[in-house]
Formats: sequence, structure tokens, C-alpha cells
Amino acid sequence: MPDQLTHFDAQGQAHMVDVGDKAATRRLAVAEGLIRLEAATLRLIEDGSAKKGDVLGVARLAGIMAAKKTSELIPLCHPVALTRVALEFELLPDPPAVRCTASAETVGPTGVEMEALTAVQVALLTIYDMCKAVDRGMEITGVRLLQKEGGRSGSYRHPSAP
Amino acid sequence: MPDQLTHFDAQGQAHMVDVGDKAATRRLAVAEGLIRLEAATLRLIEDGSAKKGDVLGVARLAGIMAAKKTSELIPLCHPVALTRVALEFELLPDPPAVRCTASAETVGPTGVEMEALTAVQVALLTIYDMCKAVDRGMEITGVRLLQKEGGRSGSYRHPSAP
Amino acid sequence: MPDQLTHFDAQGQAHMVDVGDKAATRRLAVAEGLIRLEAATLRLIEDGSAKKGDVLGVARLAGIMAAKKTSELIPLCHPVALTRVALEFELLPDPPAVRCTASAETVGPTGVEMEALTAVQVALLTIYDMCKAVDRGMEITGVRLLQKEGGRSGSYRHPSAP
Amino acid sequence: MPDQLTHFDAQGQAHMVDVGDKAATRRLAVAEGLIRLEAATLRLIEDGSAKKGDVLGVARLAGIMAAKKTSELIPLCHPVALTRVALEFELLPDPPAVRCTASAETVGPTGVEMEALTAVQVALLTIYDMCKAVDRGMEITGVRLLQKEGGRSGSYRHPSAP
Amino acid sequence: MPDQLTHFDAQGQAHMVDVGDKAATRRLAVAEGLIRLEAATLRLIEDGSAKKGDVLGVARLAGIMAAKKTSELIPLCHPVALTRVALEFELLPDPPAVRCTASAETVGPTGVEMEALTAVQVALLTIYDMCKAVDRGMEITGVRLLQKEGGRSGSYRHPSAP
Amino acid sequence: MPDQLTHFDAQGQAHMVDVGDKAATRRLAVAEGLIRLEAATLRLIEDGSAKKGDVLGVARLAGIMAAKKTSELIPLCHPVALTRVALEFELLPDPPAVRCTASAETVGPTGVEMEALTAVQVALLTIYDMCKAVDRGMEITGVRLLQKEGGRSGSYRHPSAP
Repeated sequence: MPDQLTHFDAQGQAHMVDVGDKAATRRLAVAEGLIRLEAATLRLIEDGSAKKGDVLGVARLAGIMAAKKTSELIPLCHPVALTRVALEFELLPDPPAVRCTASAETVGPTGVEMEALTAVQVALLTIYDMCKAVDRGMEITGVRLLQKEGGRSGSYRHPSAP
Repeated sequence: MPDQLTHFDAQGQAHMVDVGDKAATRRLAVAEGLIRLEAATLRLIEDGSAKKGDVLGVARLAGIMAAKKTSELIPLCHPVALTRVALEFELLPDPPAVRCTASAETVGPTGVEMEALTAVQVALLTIYDMCKAVDRGMEITGVRLLQKEGGRSGSYRHPSAP
Repeated sequence: MPDQLTHFDAQGQAHMVDVGDKAATRRLAVAEGLIRLEAATLRLIEDGSAKKGDVLGVARLAGIMAAKKTSELIPLCHPVALTRVALEFELLPDPPAVRCTASAETVGPTGVEMEALTAVQVALLTIYDMCKAVDRGMEITGVRLLQKEGGRSGSYRHPSAP
Repeated sequence: MPDQLTHFDAQGQAHMVDVGDKAATRRLAVAEGLIRLEAATLRLIEDGSAKKGDVLGVARLAGIMAAKKTSELIPLCHPVALTRVALEFELLPDPPAVRCTASAETVGPTGVEMEALTAVQVALLTIYDMCKAVDRGMEITGVRLLQKEGGRSGSYRHPSAP
Repeated sequence: MPDQLTHFDAQGQAHMVDVGDKAATRRLAVAEGLIRLEAATLRLIEDGSAKKGDVLGVARLAGIMAAKKTSELIPLCHPVALTRVALEFELLPDPPAVRCTASAETVGPTGVEMEALTAVQVALLTIYDMCKAVDRGMEITGVRLLQKEGGRSGSYRHPSAP
Repeated sequence: MPDQLTHFDAQGQAHMVDVGDKAATRRLAVAEGLIRLEAATLRLIEDGSAKKGDVLGVARLAGIMAAKKTSELIPLCHPVALTRVALEFELLPDPPAVRCTASAETVGPTGVEMEALTAVQVALLTIYDMCKAVDRGMEITGVRLLQKEGGRSGSYRHPSAP
């Protein structure tokens, strides 16, 4: 392991790393995360997809839009022209939770891990927001990178990725 | 538990809930979350505070600035004039992790839970960004509301809050 | 009619008008607009609410979020702490069109007409975006203020308002 | 006509469509729209270009800046690096109106129709904002795509385009 | 002089200072700055106000809009609901320069010095942008607070203020 | 010297200049600026780097993040995908001042002077914000372009550049 983080120069000062020499290649990242909630809250979300309010539809859009804001939120991130963003949700009954998986892609000099992770985080926060009046003990957990393709550092696949 | 989420109207359509009749009172929210990482990464962060790059200083600012962007990120959140935002970090040795705690305050008609949670999420994402070149298995976890004061629904304190 | 617009000073220079002396009162504005499209496109939108993609759900969220960005878009608008935003859609069969009605509210020194109009405009643009691959002749039309309450200038109701 | 909108996947879920395989070509879009207003308001705008406040100058800048914000406003739009934006205004005496025409260009994998339409919408909203104190019955109308060049779907020219 | 800056806590960590207890009072700030340029550039600007392009009109709008973005730009600034923003320009012949003066006002718990200064800085940068093709040696200088009213710390007037 | 500014068309109307034909080349810009302050304020900043609050660390991040917002702030600037941003600070004892130097790079059709200048301006404003409680007479001065590489107009080096 290096003894220095790349986001800091030799004097320990933060900078936006030079990627001007890196080739523009196709990049993909997939991230996931969970929000744990009460069983009754999960049922409200499940019903909502039908008639009472589409919690997951709202959260999906929030995640997509947040991915586009990643470089505004993460100080040292490069601006990225995303070519694709998609989010999936899965309702897990026991223990009750919603899993969110986000994929982000670009053709460019930098990876899009942060974009996929930001999409997951904001989608889960949005679920939290919509359910907080009925369930205050929700917890966002297990947010991590599942997969990464493209770029000099090659592919990565989390041991638990399907 | 109600059978309807307040962010949707009787037809199940999302809206920004009317808070025009709610009194402007002092509101506080405290949220926390963890990022789990390798022991070597934790040491880099620890050293960094001294000389090699202040990871936590960057993450703290990112969290503060993100709190101000909450209503841009969370679709149905009301805009809030924050009167205070502060973040604390704690290095946990075993298992190795960084804990982030964020406090947000306002004087207004709505609570600031989402602002505190957004600060935590973005601060932890920023740590992820700065350390991802040396540690790809990091995981953000345990993001939850610890405490809430003010407003019609009164105080809340998570069972695990100190 | 005055011979001078309030957004310009005596020298004709644009400024953000002083509202520091105006009382904070409850304000409401309702605006509407239409997008005309082909009958087949209207049917796709109608079906979509069920299963194939919720065009109106996406447009509604886009409108709500755009209302919060009004003062970033309209150069001389004051920042406004919106207390409520809601959008309704109506499918009109003949000639085929979607009507969008947006309501915005605040408690403050300035009106929220621009917020309601911006919500309508961006909601209709979002419908355009989602349908443009199948229907290039769509037209956004009839965007106007229907109603306005609160503030020194009193109430307003468009002759055609219900 | 397809029975599915491209902004939704096979399950009807919104996503940002994959454009990673599309070639970066030169793209142009031209859109137009009108704001109908009273004859006296039109005269104020006309005079204003001279001395009392340049309504159209402010609206033009607002349109240019809004074009750059399109992907923040329209949820499923890709971020686009615009290479040119220009707006023209024409004063129409009878019935009194201002016509706005906006052109947007890029070199990239996606079209810029939404950028041109957003520029028109925000420019017309800005005229509305500056004139609303003297004329509350204004109406924005006839907002549509006039022309489109570049990309796989080829050129498009509205029947009414000059 | 205190030995500690208020934007940092006792441990030296940045925070957004608590203003929840401060009264909402009327606040004013006036700032100024200069851009020095060649005499020929100054003449282009002077002519432009007439026919060839209104450099100062564009810069004025940029300054007004930037004032509204201050809390997004300055990390520890509180969000402020501005009630007035106005900019003046003065052409100084010898040595050739443009002076920009910006006033900002609010009714709130914090001052608006940063808003006035940000307006000046961005207005001058915008002049730079528009003239840089003909004059690369321009310099922005003398940016400072002229006056401040309201709030616990009372009034301030720069020794050189008129 | 031309008798027309490129940001305006033949009718004197502002537009975002067409860069669709310009080659994407590597571009660099370096800008600098000073903030003059009292000697005691300079000592607080100097100490701060150690323990009492890292003023320059906060200002550096603010500058990096502002560079990414340049095209939102400067009306006629093209959006730019920055590939590198870095800021340096130097403490000048006599007369007491902090000098900020910012470098910005991209690979694209337009230069990045405005990005480097915006980084300097916002970094210096951020120092102002953090020190204004103890020193109201600070002045930002000498903000200018030091160096520019790449693009049709070739290299530029300010006479005073090192």
C-alpha cells in the first residue's frame, strides 16, 4: 500500500489530480446499499408502487439526478459526462429492507465509482425522507462498490458481487 | 401507523407538503454513520491529519456544503435556512472505521433531519473518494438519526444515542 | 400603466428590487400550461401511468424541483423559501394534450408566480423530453398565471380561471 | 410508433438512456416560442432596449445560462458540453407578442433539443418576470422545436420553419 | 484581537457558526473593486453600452446572480434570503479602469458582506471574460468592503468610503 | 485591436461563441491574486495551519470547487471538463498578505483562464470570510492571469510571471 493518498500533493495539500494524460475509455461502476426499516414501512412502500404513492419511483429519479451532481458534492471529483445511469430496487422481507443498486457509465479519463455511490446514497436518503414520518429508526447500511470496469487499474468485482 | 405517506396526496401523487401553517421554532438534528476500511487506510487518515493530507478536513467541509444542498438533492424537501452545521469524526480502531456525527440546526417550520443525514452521507462519500485508490472494499454503514429536537412531533432520541 | 419597469432603476439598470420593507405574508400562486401532442403519444402517457413508464410522475417531480431553482434561473427573482408545491396533470383528448397546473406557496415578502410558472414550464419540458423520440411536433402552449393571493397588490384571478 | 418510450426500461422504470456507443457528431437544434402581452407592455420593452431597461438583454442572458442548466432541470437528460448558444428576439405588433428563437450546438453523442427549448422557456419566463407588475395576463405559447441537425435520427425541420 | 477565528471550534475544526440566537435585523453591505485595463478596452466598453455589446449590462446581471450563489461558493457562509442587490459601474479614464460597487441587503441573523463582495468579484470576472480576447493584461484590484450596517457588531465604514 | 468584442454578435447581442470547430487540445492557465490583511491576521492564519483552524485548507477547497462552477457564474463561458485544478498559497510578511496561485487544465476546445481566475477569487473571498470577524480592512488585489498554454492563440506569459 502506498504511504500517500493521490488526492494530496507531496506537501499534503488537496488538489484535483491531473487526468489530462489518461485515455478516454468506456467506464462502468455498480454500487449498492440498503435501508433497513420496519416491516409495516416496507409494506407501505410495496403498496405505494401500486396506488398510494410511488416511493421507489421518486427515489430512483433522485438517484439519477444526484449522480449528475457528484462533482459538485465531492470536492476533488472531476466533472464527468455520464452516458448512462440506472437504479434498481429490491424489497427484502426478512429482515425488512430495500436494496438499491446503481449503475453509472461514461466514456472518459476517470472512473464513475463516486457517481454510482452517490446515486445509491441519495436514493436511499430519499426513501428515508418519504418514510421518516412513520418510521424514525431506519438505517442506511452496506453502501459499497460492487463492480468497476475500464481504466488503467482494470476491473474490480467485490467478493460478494453476484 | 398511518396507511398513507405524507409526501403523497390522496391520489398517490408526490407533492411538497404544505408547511405554511407550522410555527417557526428552533430545530436540531444529529445523525451519524460509519465507513469501514482497512487498518492501513485508517493509519493513512490518522497520519494525514498531521502532514500527508487532511482527509477528515476535506470530508468535513464537503459535509457542511452538502447540508446546504439538501433541498436540491432530496426532491420533496423544503428549502431550509440552516443556522448551524458541524461535523465530528472519530477513528475507531477495531474493527477499523471512521465514525462521522453531524449536527444541523435551523429556526423554521420544518425539521433538519435530512440536512444532518446528507452531511453524514457526503462526508463519508468524500472519505471514500480520497481513499479509493488504496482501498476498494470500504463500506458505508450505520447511517441513522441519533437525535431530533423541536417541532410538533417533539423530541426523538435513538435508543443507541449517547 | 407606469412608464417604467420596476426591475430597472431610474438609469435603466437592472437590479433586484428592495423588498426589505415588505411584510412577510402568506402567498399563493397557481399557473397552468398545455403540451399538445399526437393522440398516439397521449395514449402512451396514459398507459404509462399503469405499467410502461410513469411520464407524469417524472414530470411532476421535475416541476417540484424546478420550482426550488426559480431564483437561480430568473436573474432578478428573490430567493424564496417555498412552503408548498403541488402539480396536477389532466389528459385532454380532443385535441390531444396534457394540461399541467402548478401551485406554489410561501410565507414571505414576495409573490411566488414565477415559482408556479417555472414548475409548469419544466414539467411540460420534461414530458417533451420523454416523448420526443416518438413525437417531434409537440408544442407547449397556454402557459399563464391563473391565480395569485397575498401581498400588497392583492388577489388576481385570470378571467378563464375556474 | 413504438409502444414503449425509450426513457423507461422494459419494467417501466425511468433511466438515463445509454449513449456510450453513439458517435460524437456535431448537433444543432433551433427552438422558438412566443409571449403574448399587451401593446403597452410591448412598447415598454421596445423603449427599454434604448434607455429604460433592457428587458430583452436580460432575457437573452437568462436563456443562455439556463441552456447550461438543462441537465439539472430535466431529470433524464444527459449532461452536454454546449459549444454555442444564441437567442434572437422579434417584436410582433399585431397581436402584440415577443418571439424568441434559440439555437444550441454541441459536438457529442446526444442532441440538444432540450437545451434550445429550455433557453426559450427561461428567456420567456424572464420577460414575464420583468413585465408582470404591469401586465398580468401575459401568456407563453407556441414553444416548439423548429430544426434539428446531426445524430442517428437525421435532420428534422418543422413544417412551419422558415 | 482574539487568538481564535470564529469559523473554527476549540479543536480547530471548521464549522458553520451557530446563528440561531441572533435576531433577524435589517442588514446592508456595500463592497467595491476595480478592473484595470487598456485605454482601448475601456473605449470598447464605453461604446458597447451604446451599440456594440453591453459589457456592463452582462456583468451587472452576473454579479446579481452570483450574490444569490454566495453560500454555495463560500464553504462556511450561511444561506441568506437577499432582499435587494444592486451594482453600479463607473468608467475611470486615467489610469483606465472600471469600478464596480455592489450593495446587498437582507433581513436576517447574519451580515451580507460576502454577498456584496461576491457580486463585485463575479461582475469584474465577467468583464475580464468578455474583454480577454483583446486585452490579456487586465488586473482585478482593490476589492474591499466599503460599508456595513445592522447586526450586533454595528456599523462599519471604510476610511475611504464616500 | 479589433473594434468588436467576440462575445457579442454584429448586432451587439451577447451569445455563447461557437467553438464547435475548434480542436480539442491540452490547455493550461495559471492565475494569481493577493489578499492584504493585518500582520496579526496573518499570524492567525500561520498558526492555524498547525492547530487552531486551517484557513488555507478551507480556502484551497473552496477554490477547487469554484473552478468547477465557473460556467455557472460567468454567463458566456462554455462548460469545461477540467482535468486538473491546484492552488498554492504563500504568506508574505511585509506588507502582510496571502498570495494565491491557481492552475487549471483541460483537454478541450476552449481555454481555462476563467477557471483559474475564479479559483483565485473564491479562495481569497473564503480567506476574507474566515478572517472578517477580526480584520475588516482586508483587500483583494492583483488578481490576474500569469500564464496560458494551448489553443489557437498560443502561449501567454505575464511580464511579471516567474
